[in-house]
Amino acid sequence: MERVSNVGQRPYDPSRTVSDEKIERILEAVRLTPTSSGLQPFELLVVTNAEVREKIKAVSWNQQQVTDCSHLLVFAAWDDITAERVNMMFDLTNEVRGTVNEGWENYRQMLLGIVAGRGKEANYQAAARQAYIGLGSALIAAAFEEVDATPMEGFDPAAIDEILGLAARNLRSVVILPLGHRATEGDWLVNLKKVRRSRENFITEIK
Amino acid sequence: MERVSNVGQRPYDPSRTVSDEKIERILEAVRLTPTSSGLQPFELLVVTNAEVREKIKAVSWNQQQVTDCSHLLVFAAWDDITAERVNMMFDLTNEVRGTVNEGWENYRQMLLGIVAGRGKEANYQAAARQAYIGLGSALIAAAFEEVDATPMEGFDPAAIDEILGLAARNLRSVVILPLGHRATEGDWLVNLKKVRRSRENFITEIK
Repeated sequence: MERVSNVGQRPYDPSRTVSDEKIERILEAVRLTPTSSGLQPFELLVVTNAEVREKIKAVSWNQQQVTDCSHLLVFAAWDDITAERVNMMFDLTNEVRGTVNEGWENYRQMLLGIVAGRGKEANYQAAARQAYIGLGSALIAAAFEEVDATPMEGFDPAAIDEILGLAARNLRSVVILPLGHRATEGDWLVNLKKVRRSRENFITEIK
Repeated sequence: MERVSNVGQRPYDPSRTVSDEKIERILEAVRLTPTSSGLQPFELLVVTNAEVREKIKAVSWNQQQVTDCSHLLVFAAWDDITAERVNMMFDLTNEVRGTVNEGWENYRQMLLGIVAGRGKEANYQAAARQAYIGLGSALIAAAFEEVDATPMEGFDPAAIDEILGLAARNLRSVVILPLGHRATEGDWLVNLKKVRRSRENFITEIK
């Protein structure tokens, strides 16, 4: 395959580490992200280990940002929404709130029926979408902290799952997010205009 | 089906309209959301029409928020990532930036190959995930504007597509977001603690 690694992706300065305080605020923004039925059907891995990052780079089209960034976030979705996982979150809710609500318990039963009927692959797809709400939070939190962030989908998910032992935890990698500070040299993107569709081509009002 | 409409969802005060300024800032946050390869493979519909909202409510488990909210956002993903759509975004980039970049053109060709090989359904799933990044932006922007937001996946997507004429535009509804101001009476959620998994159960550090 042709090497296109740095197209559209800015270079990071590997000597610049993002402070723990900034990273914690970004992680907390993701952790507090609201999700469908409150399930939080994904987890976050924060990879700083150099050897592990070299392995991930090798299965990510050798994109240099994977190893040059300060912290590499891996969003990993539940590979299935099992009854055990649904019950874990509903039980946690009851525990935190110290109450059992009849409507909430009816909702639990309905949701258990839905996920059982939907099947593993559709449950994984639904969980992966929720991870992208978290990605949205991470991107805004990173911008607020003046940390550069480069979402990447160009990697071999099964290979990353293997490197990080995700299958054993019933997780699947969906998107990775290098966080760091851009190199001041060599960023051909920095002077280019942001490109977005116009409001007219993106938004329809039905009044 | 058992009526569970208001479980986990707060009531809106239908008499309180969100100002145009706040709505525009929320819409703009979604429009500026970064997406994979810059494709923005979704659109946003803003429904204020009462009759249309009644129809949507009828296929959304009669959830009262659909009609009581101030503005109803519908996130609609591309039903396929066609060559025409990829070229539209790459051409727009060249137009905005006033240049043609060889690396970017190589990337276009590679991406055209990927989406052609992946097939319509997988392309739709990929597009739907990007819409959820936009949902994340909308939720944070709404919180910043002190506007209440209630993401909903509990609806019949094909029925909403029909009501809004989305199929003719090669779009599919993925998630809806009522925006408004909560009713001060009857919000049984307002005094309940937010429930999230602990940092230890959500984040893994690989150092």
